Amino acid sequence: MLPLERHVFVCENRRDPADPRGCCASKGSHEIRSRLKELAHRAGLKGRVRINEAGCLDQCARGVTVVVYPEAVWYGAVTLQDVEEIFQSHVLEGRPVDRLRIDP
Amino acid sequence: MLPLERHVFVCENRRDPADPRGCCASKGSHEIRSRLKELAHRAGLKGRVRINEAGCLDQCARGVTVVVYPEAVWYGAVTLQDVEEIFQSHVLEGRPVDRLRIDP
Repeated sequence: MLPLERHVFVCENRRDPADPRGCCASKGSHEIRSRLKELAHRAGLKGRVRINEAGCLDQCARGVTVVVYPEAVWYGAVTLQDVEEIFQSHVLEGRPVDRLRIDP
Repeated sequence: MLPLERHVFVCENRRDPADPRGCCASKGSHEIRSRLKELAHRAGLKGRVRINEAGCLDQCARGVTVVVYPEAVWYGAVTLQDVEEIFQSHVLEGRPVDRLRIDP
């Protein structure tokens, strides 16, 4: 067996709109996951990279939250504009994107 | 920062009941995740261990599927009866439960 080279989890938790923390779903996490999946598919990474939905990663106010294993790197306030950089630098080349890292 | 000691993902994907693969949701994954969360809470592991819902882990016929990081260990056909062993042996003591491991 070859383990996954990267296993990416994108929080898609949805909270009540009145919750002051907000939530990843309301900040576009579904679109972010879709774009990551599309990039992985185009790069022919099936079986080597997996992009998964995750439940609440408990960083609601700092979402959209993305976690990448095996490096256990957490990203916060991720927007659709950040996705290509995360994909190219971290998922493909193994270099985490420091400017987006958070300490969970 | 201290990284999570264990980050556990339980697939809760639900497929059409007519799908011959079945799905983790129909095999009790929600109850499995709830039990893992309860055990982690009782053990006082908040901030050290996180139990998360995951979207489809692409092992539908072999579900319930559970993945544990940072070891990147995949478990298949997990039942509620297996949860305490996974928790005690792997989550707490760092020894994966070989009899339940699958090769994704």
